[in-house]
Order: sequence, then C-alpha cells, then structure tokens
Amino acid sequence: MNLDSLALRLQNDQLSILDQQLLPFEKKWLTVKSVDEMITIIKALKVRGAPLIGVAAALALADEARQKKYSIGQFQQAAERMRQARPTAVNLMNAVDRVTAAAKTSDYISAVWNEAVAIFHEDVELCEKMGRRAAELINEGDGVLTHCNTGGLATVGRGTALAAISCAWEQKKSIHVYVDETRPLLQGGRLTAWELSEMGIPYTLISDNMAGWVMSQGKVQKVFVGTDRIAMNGDIANKVGTYSVAVLCKYHNIPFYVVGPSTTIDPHCPSGREIPIEERAPHEVRGVEGSFGKVQWASPESQVYNPAFDVTPVDLITGIVVDGDYFSQTDLKAGALRRLFN
Amino acid sequence: MNLDSLALRLQNDQLSILDQQLLPFEKKWLTVKSVDEMITIIKALKVRGAPLIGVAAALALADEARQKKYSIGQFQQAAERMRQARPTAVNLMNAVDRVTAAAKTSDYISAVWNEAVAIFHEDVELCEKMGRRAAELINEGDGVLTHCNTGGLATVGRGTALAAISCAWEQKKSIHVYVDETRPLLQGGRLTAWELSEMGIPYTLISDNMAGWVMSQGKVQKVFVGTDRIAMNGDIANKVGTYSVAVLCKYHNIPFYVVGPSTTIDPHCPSGREIPIEERAPHEVRGVEGSFGKVQWASPESQVYNPAFDVTPVDLITGIVVDGDYFSQTDLKAGALRRLFN
Repeated sequence: MNLDSLALRLQNDQLSILDQQLLPFEKKWLTVKSVDEMITIIKALKVRGAPLIGVAAALALADEARQKKYSIGQFQQAAERMRQARPTAVNLMNAVDRVTAAAKTSDYISAVWNEAVAIFHEDVELCEKMGRRAAELINEGDGVLTHCNTGGLATVGRGTALAAISCAWEQKKSIHVYVDETRPLLQGGRLTAWELSEMGIPYTLISDNMAGWVMSQGKVQKVFVGTDRIAMNGDIANKVGTYSVAVLCKYHNIPFYVVGPSTTIDPHCPSGREIPIEERAPHEVRGVEGSFGKVQWASPESQVYNPAFDVTPVDLITGIVVDGDYFSQTDLKAGALRRLFN
Repeated sequence: MNLDSLALRLQNDQLSILDQQLLPFEKKWLTVKSVDEMITIIKALKVRGAPLIGVAAALALADEARQKKYSIGQFQQAAERMRQARPTAVNLMNAVDRVTAAAKTSDYISAVWNEAVAIFHEDVELCEKMGRRAAELINEGDGVLTHCNTGGLATVGRGTALAAISCAWEQKKSIHVYVDETRPLLQGGRLTAWELSEMGIPYTLISDNMAGWVMSQGKVQKVFVGTDRIAMNGDIANKVGTYSVAVLCKYHNIPFYVVGPSTTIDPHCPSGREIPIEERAPHEVRGVEGSFGKVQWASPESQVYNPAFDVTPVDLITGIVVDGDYFSQTDLKAGALRRLFN
C-alpha cells in the first residue's frame, strides 16, 4: 500500500517521515521501523503538528503489530507507550484510542491497519473541509496573521489554519500573510514561511513580539491559528504564544479564529484548566538548534521557563472551524461541542 | 581623566567601549579613536541603550575635537554626522545638542569636553534617582517582567528600568524577574539575564511570546521598561515588542511603568506619531548572530519586517519615572511633561 503526503509516506508498506527539524534547508526522509522509533521521533519534534502526530502514531502502531505479529496484549502495551509521547495534543490520544478500539475484532491486525489508513484519508478530507469553510471568513485584501505551522507539514492533508489561507488564495483572493516566527522552535520562520513561499502566497516574516505593532498599524484583519486540543467549553491549547496573540486581537478588535479537525476535540476535557501543558528542555530557550546550525546565547546556568503550549480561553476566540462547521463564541458557550458527542 | 562604567571607559583620556554584541561570552573593549568609528559602533549596536549612546556620542565628539584641534565648523559637521547614527533614540540628539551649545564659547574645545564629562556624571546620578524612585513602585514578593536591556549596559550608571529592580533588591525586597529574550537581537537573553545573574537577582528567561501566558498565571505584578524617546503627550518609543507587552498588561490589569532620564524626553515631539522608527536589516529576523555564532533558519529570499522600535501610547502607560519624579498617566495627559520645558 502507498500513502503520500508532504511529511509522511507509506511506500511498499514502509513508513517514513520527513525530518521537520532539518527544514527548510534539508529534506531528509527517516524510515520508521518501530513504535519506539516513532516515539523518539515525536519527542524530538522531527514529526510535529497535532493531526500529523495522530496519523503517524496510528500507522506506526499498525505497522509494528503487523510486522511483529503482536498479541493483543503486546499491542496494547505499545499503544500505552505511544500515548505518552506528547501530553498536550489530543489527536495522538484520539488516534491511539481508535486503533485500540479496532483491535477488539478477531482479525485484529488487519482491523488496526485499516483503521490507521482510514485515519490518514479522513485527515486529508477534513483538511479540505476546514480549509474551504475557514476561507469563507477571509475577505479580498485581508492581512492575515498566523502563529506556528499549520499547513501540509502539520497534517497529511493541506493543513488547518494554513489551509484557510491557501484555499482563500486559490479562490483568487488577494491576501497578505504575517508569519510569527514562533520561538523557541521557529516553526513559523522555518516551516510556514517555506510553505507559503512554495505556494507563492505573499507573506512577511516577523518576530513574535512585532505582532502587536503590526496590528496597531491596521495591517491585520484576521488571525487564524491551529490547535492541539479543544476542550468542551471551547477553550483551546495551541503552540505557546497563541494566548498572547489572542489578547492582542481582543485589544485591536481583530477576529481570532481557530481551525482544527474534530479529532482535536477532547470530550473528556471540560475546560482549558484540565489540559496538561508540556514543558520542554531549557536549552531550547537559551538558543536555537536545527539543520541550520546550533547556537546558545544565554548562559547554560540561566533559569528558563519553556512551556510548549498555552491555553486560550473561549472568551478570546471569535470562532472555531471544526471540519466543515463553524462554531461562533456564542455557539461554543452554549455547549455546541458537547452536543457533538451526545 | 578617567571615567569608568560597565560598558564605557575613559582611561588616560582614551575612550573605549565594551562590545555588547559579543556579550555574554566575550568581554572585548574597543578603543574608539574617532567620531566615524563611534558612528559605526553605534550602528552595529556594539554600543546600545539610549542613555549610553548619548554619553558615548558626546565623549566621542569632544575627544575628536580635542585631538584634531577642529574648527567650530568641522566640529559642527562631525556633530551632524553623529546625529544621524540612530534615528529613534532622542538621548543621542539631546547629547549632541548639549555639546554643540557648549561649543559656542571662546575656549570651545574645553567647554565641549567639560560638557561631555558632565553628561556622563549626570547620567550616573539620574540612574540612581530613577532607580530609587521606581523601586518604591515595587512591593515585597512582586514578580516583575522586563523587556530588552536597561541596566548598567544601557547607561553609564546603574540603568533605568533595571535600576528599579536592582534598587528594590538592595532594599531586601524579595522579587522575581521575568526576562523577555527580546528578539531579534536578544538583549534580554544575552544582556539582562547576564546582568541579573551577576547581581544575584532571581530571574526566569522566557521567549517574548510567553509573556502573556506568564501574566495569565498571576506570576507578574509589575512591568518595567526603559525608553528611547518620550513624546510630550506621554507616548513613548522603546525596543520593538514593548507595545505588545503594554497591551498584555492592560488586559491583565498589571501596572506598566516606563523609566527614563529627562534626557529621553523630546520637547519637539508632540506625540508618538512623530517618532521616526528605525527599520533594520532583514537578516536579523531570518536568524541570529553574535559572538555565540551565526545561524540563519529562514530563506534569504523570505520577506521580513524588522522595526527596531515601536510606540506605546500614553493610554497603555500606568506612569513614567523621569529622574527622581513620577508622572502618572493622569499627570501625563494633563501636560506634566510640557510644563517641564516651560
């Protein structure tokens, strides 16, 4: 079987991952031969983007079960290890839940495999739906600011927030994108700038602390971001810095939109307060590291805080596009997400 | 004559500057033998910090006039070139104005020299006054966030906003400082973290986009920043990112204080709209560069916006400490700064 996307491939049943830590200067595909290899790759952010992590995790589990002819018990142990790879993004947990549930049939190895492949195809389709629905929110001439990377590198489809932008561009809307570089790991400066330039969409790269100043000059009409987890009350977790952008939008009366597939919703999470926030190593803030090189400008003794994500409360969110649907803040506060699970 | 400070020295009449681009890993003093050398050093940010630039400019002019036995006309030409070195910080213009005014006496070379030395000593004294006055605004147990570098490296005294913090620490107030790394040039991560650690003051380094998240967790009770120019209506220009911090303070009801010497006030500037904002080279945003190394993660073709400063309107400012005085937003709006010049 073959599956193909910008950053994940299955060729002759061999799973491989584009090492995103090496982008934009080097395109290196990593063959992934086991669940534990995939866990290491996820932790090192070589594969990243909440939806893509979910698909990658499901395929790695299905592949290992098949190759090693796992018993159900062994499969469940591997699934548990996978679940711990990153704590914040819920797509990972959702994908693991789905292949685990599929494992409850008699021919469980085929069932798990088919489920993982179905997750891949669904993600492609959901991206298309999200992009089209969210693009309706973008007007001709809009300046659109985005944070982190939410495009073809974050999913196996065309992305979430960045799909809104690329769909609007396909619809011939003349837009300009402001790209937050997204410290500390520079997903904006390395990945989003690269994706936009590949698509020929005009953009301006800024450091994160310039977002407010750009807004104050009237250059930004809409903000679109992705999400790693959507709580039932409409609070969302996303890449650190998203919360600050949302506050800046509130002050400048700029609509703040979140775009994510339904696999990002966590029905067990009542609000943002319950979302665990992953803290990462201090050296990420003391410097930068990637295929472009490695430098550290702050002393190795400097005290650092490095949350990978933050939580944006529903009060700061104009609306969320989930798959093909749009939920306004009013809808969210009225319990629209809860109703999806009833 | 000898003058000594953390980043500027006069030893046996020889002016030298600590190369701040090399900090914190290398301490290299640059001997400055001419006005044009000093202009190059200022443009390259080897000397930085609005008050320090003013003192450095005055001493370089006085030194060159004396060494080269300039005519008044030659001196005035050199002063004009110096004035163009950086457009946003007004201390530079104020210092050049003062030595130019002093040049109108008969023994003009001595007069200019004495004036430059007086500016040095005044800056030391003003830092002390500012620090003490501003420290009164800090309470026992406060979390204090600051942006950019405003300490002993930004002045010839103990600094402006950072003097508030070091004075409060001297007064045995138990405080914790959150340091914005301050992209693109990392004055927070390289310089402020280093100064705080030298003084033994507890701090946490964060990337700029974490400021809002840290505030939302109740960790920040006050924000102190310096300034490169204060307009007559109370608007201020400061390092890019200051405006975003001020908006975040407004949303979180956190007092936002500005600290600057009276030499930072521009009586000819009615409001922030009239402050010219220096734009710097795009490679600063595409990567980082310093004694720690040089890396570029964004493509050399990427479009970049790189304002060095932004303007924070008086509406977002709780108060400004000028020398030993405190002006609340109400004072500022009632024209308190205008009255200083009447």
